[in-house]
Amino acid sequence: MSLIVQKYGGTSVGTPERIRNVASRILETREAGHRVVAVVSAMAGVTDNLLKLAAEVTGDGRPTEREMDVLLSTGEQTTIALTAMALNSMGASAISLTGAQAGIETDGVHTKARISNITPSEVHRMLDEGHIVILAGFQGRTPEGRITTLGRGGSDLTAIAMAAAVDADLCQIYTDVDGVYTCDPRVVPDAKKIEEISYDEMLEMASSGSKVMQSRAVEFAKKFGVRFEVRSSLNRNPGTLVCEENMSMESVVIRGVSLEKKQAKVTIEGVRDEPGVAGRIFGAVSDANLIVDMIVQNVSKTGITDISFTVNEADLGKAKEVLAPVLAELGPDASIEAESGIAKLSVVGIGMRSHSGVAAQMFAALADAGINIQMISTSEIKITVTVSEAQIDEAARVMHKAFGLSGEVAVAS
Amino acid sequence: MSLIVQKYGGTSVGTPERIRNVASRILETREAGHRVVAVVSAMAGVTDNLLKLAAEVTGDGRPTEREMDVLLSTGEQTTIALTAMALNSMGASAISLTGAQAGIETDGVHTKARISNITPSEVHRMLDEGHIVILAGFQGRTPEGRITTLGRGGSDLTAIAMAAAVDADLCQIYTDVDGVYTCDPRVVPDAKKIEEISYDEMLEMASSGSKVMQSRAVEFAKKFGVRFEVRSSLNRNPGTLVCEENMSMESVVIRGVSLEKKQAKVTIEGVRDEPGVAGRIFGAVSDANLIVDMIVQNVSKTGITDISFTVNEADLGKAKEVLAPVLAELGPDASIEAESGIAKLSVVGIGMRSHSGVAAQMFAALADAGINIQMISTSEIKITVTVSEAQIDEAARVMHKAFGLSGEVAVAS
Repeated sequence: MSLIVQKYGGTSVGTPERIRNVASRILETREAGHRVVAVVSAMAGVTDNLLKLAAEVTGDGRPTEREMDVLLSTGEQTTIALTAMALNSMGASAISLTGAQAGIETDGVHTKARISNITPSEVHRMLDEGHIVILAGFQGRTPEGRITTLGRGGSDLTAIAMAAAVDADLCQIYTDVDGVYTCDPRVVPDAKKIEEISYDEMLEMASSGSKVMQSRAVEFAKKFGVRFEVRSSLNRNPGTLVCEENMSMESVVIRGVSLEKKQAKVTIEGVRDEPGVAGRIFGAVSDANLIVDMIVQNVSKTGITDISFTVNEADLGKAKEVLAPVLAELGPDASIEAESGIAKLSVVGIGMRSHSGVAAQMFAALADAGINIQMISTSEIKITVTVSEAQIDEAARVMHKAFGLSGEVAVAS
Repeated sequence: MSLIVQKYGGTSVGTPERIRNVASRILETREAGHRVVAVVSAMAGVTDNLLKLAAEVTGDGRPTEREMDVLLSTGEQTTIALTAMALNSMGASAISLTGAQAGIETDGVHTKARISNITPSEVHRMLDEGHIVILAGFQGRTPEGRITTLGRGGSDLTAIAMAAAVDADLCQIYTDVDGVYTCDPRVVPDAKKIEEISYDEMLEMASSGSKVMQSRAVEFAKKFGVRFEVRSSLNRNPGTLVCEENMSMESVVIRGVSLEKKQAKVTIEGVRDEPGVAGRIFGAVSDANLIVDMIVQNVSKTGITDISFTVNEADLGKAKEVLAPVLAELGPDASIEAESGIAKLSVVGIGMRSHSGVAAQMFAALADAGINIQMISTSEIKITVTVSEAQIDEAARVMHKAFGLSGEVAVAS
């Protein structure tokens, strides 16, 4: 009898009817002879309603984060009770546990706590008594008993962390897509579902805009070696298995292509090339809670250099604002230039480590299609470029084809 | 610096705006130099929505009671977070505590648990640190950590039990009426607010239909000697103080008149007057979860007697149904007679213990007004009669005047 941890997101449990569907799937797993721990999120829309209430009672003020966690955690608590009831009404024996009851201990950083320890004795006891355990995602408690929430992607993290703590045989992340695709099917119609992907590839795909899961949960899975499957709660299709890389994975040069639109580029020109300059720039940006991606700086020949980076288009105004007072410190001729309407394109694959020429092949294919590359940044298993947003869809299709992901032209140098 | 426990019901916290009003009142108390523990209920309507969700996910089935408690307790948890946030946004320092966090321990009877113990160390710690404590009413936890709810009137009970546990100087129950009245002002326009009432009188008023509070919370207050004030959250009027009886109370013969409409009378005639008969009748009724009030049996001369009792009109059909199979056991000539459209009228006062003739005065006044009495039942400090529902309002006005409650004619025999 194997032990399976499942996770169902807010859309999957968004209505009473969907909760019954989820309950049926859980029951099926149970009836196939497995022990089941099912992690559920708040019903879609519930969290937004709670945030609205919080805004209303506090006027213009900022709700206390400690109380925000007490408030938001009711969302998952509602779902666990309803899911357990639904299962029990179907003749199963299900028990709900909040994060605190399940022994999920966190630090005290409210609204974005980190799991520090899991004591799964209550989960084991319930499983041993023959119950299906329905566990609240996204939440935990501090050693002193305060309620905490884990922030974005928290329910995935709960599932993966609990799978590690109880040494589950399998962890299944149910979502509204069939798995991880070689590219966004809305952009590349012949994108294919990936059967198996390594943690590192999944992380690079996620950080490049393929938001099937938050990076945080994937990082946790990698750290503790938790194999998990991403699959749809709406059909019976097999999903994508995320696991340690293995030999066969290397034979594929590029696992997938990811894209991220609505980006903007900021270039600071005429910057003195000396220690501390980059720190001042990105310190100011990070103090404003802006997320910076792709940072590019070229070697300087004259002691004066340019630094470029990308931000979300919506953050561009704020970025210019916080950098204005810093400009004077950077050099007498420092100036700032900003451009919106750009997009990021990445090719990801652990296979590129053992194949040279991937970058050259990428740039050549884009050039052949008449697509101009603005910035380039690389990691060991990813190459990212920025292009004009108007050309990003075409660029993705070109990449998808160039690296044989459509199953038409397989190319490896 | 005195310690005050306040309780605000579901209507008082029914909207974000009302929560802000409640927060203002709590803050006022704090700024007057008191330490405050405020117990809050679920926002009006929230519990009904949760019950509806539970019904939907379970189809026709009955939701598991353990899970019902996990579900319902989210209602108060939402209110404590919102109330604490509202206070913090006003510059106060407030901390929310769930029943479990506040050390409210109960037995394991889900949906109607009893408080078995309170360990208020966390409440004390928060108060000592200078916080206002916002406590979830209606809920607790078992020693094993399961979430429980206290059933109807549970938030009043939480407030009174916590007031006892922390040895509060005052407990204030805020509601949507100004206090306890000598009679229902909708029936008797010159009914007056009672300044001070004993626990026993309050209990008798409650059990006779004046549902300002559930009897259960009053019983608890009596047992532990918790003085409390019932007052309105909508204005600044002083309320009614509920406390131990004192000498001055005895000078008032009748404290108040209470009435309860929509009652029905069931009479079982031709019953053998032997041990076990009443047990069989009321066993059957109680197995069906019907609440029986006023039970009247007269002495028998022939070995055959009649037994009458009242039930809520809505339960009459069910009562007849469950009694039908019992009838044959009661005697060869046993028959059942039922009558709806009746009402109960009670006069309550600890003063009647030291005054004879109260019953005679009551019956005479009703007779003078042409009101026929159907059943009579008395306790040490209460006399209850049933009359036709069509005459109950008039009967209440007659009583109110006869016992000088309107301040016109003071009569004592």
